[in-house]
Amino acid sequence: MNTKLLDNIRIVLVNPLYGGNIGSTCRAMANMGICDLAIAQPRSVNMDEAVMMACHAVDIFKNRTEFPSLAEAVADCGTVIGSTAREGLYRQHVQMPREIAPLILEAAARGTVAIVFGREDKGLTNEELAVCTHLFQIPTTQEFKSLNLSQAVMVMCYEIFIAAGFYEPPAEKSVAASFALKERMFEMWRETLLKIGFMDNERADHMMLGIRRIMGRGAQTEDDVRIMMGINKQTKWAMDPEKDQTVVKNKCSVSSK
Amino acid sequence: MNTKLLDNIRIVLVNPLYGGNIGSTCRAMANMGICDLAIAQPRSVNMDEAVMMACHAVDIFKNRTEFPSLAEAVADCGTVIGSTAREGLYRQHVQMPREIAPLILEAAARGTVAIVFGREDKGLTNEELAVCTHLFQIPTTQEFKSLNLSQAVMVMCYEIFIAAGFYEPPAEKSVAASFALKERMFEMWRETLLKIGFMDNERADHMMLGIRRIMGRGAQTEDDVRIMMGINKQTKWAMDPEKDQTVVKNKCSVSSK
Repeated sequence: MNTKLLDNIRIVLVNPLYGGNIGSTCRAMANMGICDLAIAQPRSVNMDEAVMMACHAVDIFKNRTEFPSLAEAVADCGTVIGSTAREGLYRQHVQMPREIAPLILEAAARGTVAIVFGREDKGLTNEELAVCTHLFQIPTTQEFKSLNLSQAVMVMCYEIFIAAGFYEPPAEKSVAASFALKERMFEMWRETLLKIGFMDNERADHMMLGIRRIMGRGAQTEDDVRIMMGINKQTKWAMDPEKDQTVVKNKCSVSSK
Repeated sequence: MNTKLLDNIRIVLVNPLYGGNIGSTCRAMANMGICDLAIAQPRSVNMDEAVMMACHAVDIFKNRTEFPSLAEAVADCGTVIGSTAREGLYRQHVQMPREIAPLILEAAARGTVAIVFGREDKGLTNEELAVCTHLFQIPTTQEFKSLNLSQAVMVMCYEIFIAAGFYEPPAEKSVAASFALKERMFEMWRETLLKIGFMDNERADHMMLGIRRIMGRGAQTEDDVRIMMGINKQTKWAMDPEKDQTVVKNKCSVSSK
């Protein structure tokens, strides 16, 4: 995993009020592979709370840098992306996180990108907004526009992480069942349902429509289909009057990992 | 805004440890238009902390329902989506929030959908995972897989809110500048840059390549282009020896709202 792009992304909190939010921010950053935290215009906050909420990401908190002003915190950044929830000033230039994430990664390939979050109560001042080259706003309902600081950081970092394409889904993800495999399953069940007297030949086509819908929708992966085939084979075995009672045949069943 | 779909989505916290996380969960839900909170197997938590972190979303906290078990909390739900961060059991059937959000909305059109989050320390038990019809996992780095509970809720609710398409971007969003309008701006600048002696006729074509790149990239909306045209006109006025010194002509400038 090439995380160099993420290494070039700096989260800047401006004048944050609560240590807990700073700690939670560190944890969200760590989840999404972003490690560079700067605090502009820091005030005295509850450090114990910050460390507690940072959890295993306490290194990000300890390695944070501090600056007297936002301008100094982003002095080395070519691109400065500011968060705004408010109406008015600059409003029409605001982008959504999903829109702006590719631009952030593109800029991160060329240098450090700052993503700036304002105070919990008042956001960024107009002066601070002027420092930003771009603005973003996290979509919310009209009724509740104010996000918790660390949750806002999480949404932005999450969008960047997803856009970067670094996430690898679980390797053993079960393969989707092919049409042909599903058809084999339906054929086996058709035969068995006739045999056990669930339906007769006359109504088989009609009944199979429902069976196909239910099993086709329910059994989506190869493993799913193999489980349904296993039940089918076991049913046939169980109804066989000649079956060997000493062997509970279950070769075909697949454990649900 | 038709929020009926969102009304059919229930967030279920199983046996949560911290009141603060329950409160933060309420706030995240409110931001994303989801109001139905259930607690399964509740324990005694710090209620003051819950109310404090819920902020303006305290109604969601107060209107929460409580159930002795997960099975009871989701008894009326056809679709139960469980959160898992761990490896192993059921792993290969896990989907990402962005994959599963459309399915959640589709199911919400037909009835109540539960989205289930486990304990902060231990997640969901195998028995509880078996109650779920689907599982999801929030993408993270391999190094820091454990998310804060309320941040996990935020990511899932955010994805649902975005998928629902309810968010309306700021109405006055500035229109992208057309090619023709940009060409007019370049033409005005070409003329002025020749006039002020920034370039001569011989090198004008070459110099304009750089100017076009910089201004074309920088001025993206109609407002942006009008600002650059305003500067241009003002420059021409300022260098006119015949200009009326008593009038500072600035008809063309556009304030940066």
